Amino acid sequence: MRQTGLPEPISRLIETLSKLPGIGEKNATRLAFYILRAPAGFSESLSKAIVDTKKRVTFCQTCYSFASENLCEICKDTGRDKTIICVVEEPLDLIAIERSGEFRGTYHVLHGVISPIEGIGPEELKIKELIHRLKTENVKEVIIATNPSVEGEATALYLAKIIKPLGVKVTRIAHGIPVGGDIEYMDEVTLGKAIKDRKQL
Amino acid sequence: MRQTGLPEPISRLIETLSKLPGIGEKNATRLAFYILRAPAGFSESLSKAIVDTKKRVTFCQTCYSFASENLCEICKDTGRDKTIICVVEEPLDLIAIERSGEFRGTYHVLHGVISPIEGIGPEELKIKELIHRLKTENVKEVIIATNPSVEGEATALYLAKIIKPLGVKVTRIAHGIPVGGDIEYMDEVTLGKAIKDRKQL
Repeated sequence: MRQTGLPEPISRLIETLSKLPGIGEKNATRLAFYILRAPAGFSESLSKAIVDTKKRVTFCQTCYSFASENLCEICKDTGRDKTIICVVEEPLDLIAIERSGEFRGTYHVLHGVISPIEGIGPEELKIKELIHRLKTENVKEVIIATNPSVEGEATALYLAKIIKPLGVKVTRIAHGIPVGGDIEYMDEVTLGKAIKDRKQL
Repeated sequence: MRQTGLPEPISRLIETLSKLPGIGEKNATRLAFYILRAPAGFSESLSKAIVDTKKRVTFCQTCYSFASENLCEICKDTGRDKTIICVVEEPLDLIAIERSGEFRGTYHVLHGVISPIEGIGPEELKIKELIHRLKTENVKEVIIATNPSVEGEATALYLAKIIKPLGVKVTRIAHGIPVGGDIEYMDEVTLGKAIKDRKQL
């Protein structure tokens, strides 16, 4: 799309914002105009927040989630159950599970899944770091919460295979029909899983 | 939504991004994580573009669109037809019309519409500046391209009333069924306009 008649700083802001995921050029234009009209304090704090995040955020040395110190908030929290580790693909998955409020253990972020097509093997992920934790910490259960995709399932199976010999219980998060989901429109794989994993009432 | 387990700089970035229009907390989280993972150059250029836009962009002293100098790109352009002025509510409307590639005249941005409910009268808008242009420049036609809302129509009628005595032709952009629109789902006001303003083939 052409952006004629716009001052260069706005065009550049629109162009940069368009690189963000899910932000098309029209959306970026709307955001740029909002930033332009908002009080100066807003653009300054947004700009500072962006730079700060990039500068001050690193990885937790235990679970490899994001952290601003050596350990993340969860690994530092003495109230969390350190005997259960929930393994996720990405930090965003961790946040989603935290929002559910159902889990009081700790996490381990793999930073991806095993994907031979994309050339990602187990050594590219934080798997040896997970095994190290299982060998040095007193862990009783590993919940594998990778996505229910082909790669996520393969990674779950791989992890189960190498963790079981360590004498640690390995579980997989349940798959089924989402709450509020409509059976009529559910895909057949999910429906198949939902029937296979049915629970007695 | 709670954002437990996140380092403070990320939480603050998410919070700030959530203030942008159309960006909810989930979306802001996704954007923050993208910024975090992108090369450092991206966060720096985004941060700089935000500050630059706010610092360097002002209003064109002729048409009141955004500009980085006294005049905007369109008012500076000697190739544009200065005898036709298209009046719009906001700079975003100007950009939308520019994208169509159908207009080679100049613009005038009102920065709002007359709205008694919100306490916005003609003196709050750039109307006297428009009248000044009509009196000092050689303008032959004013196209009123305010939105087809109650306020937009009222503003169009008000402008027509005060511009006509100056001997300048006043026109209104056409309303009707959008290209690709579905008559079946079109609202009755649009359909009414479409029939009333029908053109002979």
